[in-house]
Amino acid sequence: MGQESTSSYRTLSSSEKGTNPMTKRHPIGVFDSGVGGLTVVRALRTALPGEDIVYLGDTARVPYGSKSPRTVEKYSLGCQQFLLDRGVKMVLIACNTASANALPALQEATRVPVIGAVEPGATSALAATKHGHIGVIGTLGTVRSNAYGRAIAARDPAAKLTQLACPLLVPLAEEGWTDDDIAMLVARRYLTQLFVQDPAIDTLVLGCTHYPLLANVLHRVANELAKHEVAVVDSAGAMAEMAKEALGSGANRRSTAGRLDCFATDTSRLDELAPRFLGEPLTGFELVDL
Amino acid sequence: MGQESTSSYRTLSSSEKGTNPMTKRHPIGVFDSGVGGLTVVRALRTALPGEDIVYLGDTARVPYGSKSPRTVEKYSLGCQQFLLDRGVKMVLIACNTASANALPALQEATRVPVIGAVEPGATSALAATKHGHIGVIGTLGTVRSNAYGRAIAARDPAAKLTQLACPLLVPLAEEGWTDDDIAMLVARRYLTQLFVQDPAIDTLVLGCTHYPLLANVLHRVANELAKHEVAVVDSAGAMAEMAKEALGSGANRRSTAGRLDCFATDTSRLDELAPRFLGEPLTGFELVDL
Repeated sequence: MGQESTSSYRTLSSSEKGTNPMTKRHPIGVFDSGVGGLTVVRALRTALPGEDIVYLGDTARVPYGSKSPRTVEKYSLGCQQFLLDRGVKMVLIACNTASANALPALQEATRVPVIGAVEPGATSALAATKHGHIGVIGTLGTVRSNAYGRAIAARDPAAKLTQLACPLLVPLAEEGWTDDDIAMLVARRYLTQLFVQDPAIDTLVLGCTHYPLLANVLHRVANELAKHEVAVVDSAGAMAEMAKEALGSGANRRSTAGRLDCFATDTSRLDELAPRFLGEPLTGFELVDL
Repeated sequence: MGQESTSSYRTLSSSEKGTNPMTKRHPIGVFDSGVGGLTVVRALRTALPGEDIVYLGDTARVPYGSKSPRTVEKYSLGCQQFLLDRGVKMVLIACNTASANALPALQEATRVPVIGAVEPGATSALAATKHGHIGVIGTLGTVRSNAYGRAIAARDPAAKLTQLACPLLVPLAEEGWTDDDIAMLVARRYLTQLFVQDPAIDTLVLGCTHYPLLANVLHRVANELAKHEVAVVDSAGAMAEMAKEALGSGANRRSTAGRLDCFATDTSRLDELAPRFLGEPLTGFELVDL
């Protein structure tokens, strides 16, 4: 038996880890630096409604986006271990910054499949673009890592990528100022910097779990600046599809809805923020100390 | 002898702690959740130029403003212990959120004087107000704590206080968007909420170390909304004066400039941000793990 768990699941023993660690009844683990990752949970519950999900938001140490790769990797490993201790059969890194900076270390640390946000986001962008001109907006940590640059170049070396860090967008989304004059001005200030670099961008990747809340404004401003239609894509749906595919026959296809257990390292503002991202009522978060 | 220190200072032994722990040659410790506290260092270096200063920015876990009191207290105790291990004769809590939520615990944990940001800010506000109508803007954690409310009521029960959390102001200051159309709109949105509650506010307290960078815009918008002159005050100068008074003959009055040793828990963006707050060039930060 693995380590004692507070949930009803057990962790995998070392012999199980050596073979196929997936069983239908184990939950899927999702972690994020905060509550934005609930947009991934939302997509997962649509794609795989029978699955149990354990969610961890590292809300005590949010945001990861302004921190160095070393710090992001350390915190991400702690988050993943928390999920593994709860017996998850798969880990989804909802946070783009953690995906961009810590995916190799996270995959190295476990035998269960670990899915980041960047690869699915890159795949979605390449499926959406007509002329191969892609813009990515995200946190400073995501942009500095150039993870989207590598993921897109590996799939289509001819694609042209332009990236920009947009630090104001996370607090705007959390404040709920998502469709007004301030949101428009901030979006215009950032996206102008992006389209000056490549006016032919036809696909915009929302490379941060908070940005889907600003999707309307970003789409409108992007179209206005580009003077052509710009597709707006994010990672959540693509991550859920990738999880479904990776699970294959290991997916729990029962007809009853799966459980959702949410944990957070700080509970401040969760009741206010979480439902905006999840899109359904929430039974609450359990406070944990990492 | 106390614990081994990496600096040239030594910590106080337990017998020294029982008596007067201050000696001239020990440094003053200042901590903050990030780099904003360097505005306090700046004021200290003006008021007490001969003093050595040890600064710690908990940049890996910034911001404290959105976290719960329990988390803020835990992190603050860790920061203070780091400074005490470096032999400081006094601790200044530059962060308003930490001052508002953790001052009693921090004072309880040591014999050296611990000075928070809230009491000096309250004193400055009462000195500046003509009619006793004071507005305080700060982080969610500072406002929720009502620390300014208690500090002002203790000094002048007749004063009327109105408080508002302004989460967008920290990222605006860090982005450097401090005097433009976006800063004006954000300031107007927040301050309108404040002056609707009390149109007679004549003194505005900048209850966060980041806000002095936005002082011009906040002052202009406050005057415009109030239709009378509004005094804008912050804690940095008052904290430095309080430190000078508390040190008394224990102050280092040598004519040569004191040393400034800066530590941070994450080094991302420090080179870009720190000089804006300190107002002088910086020799760099040493990375520490708390």
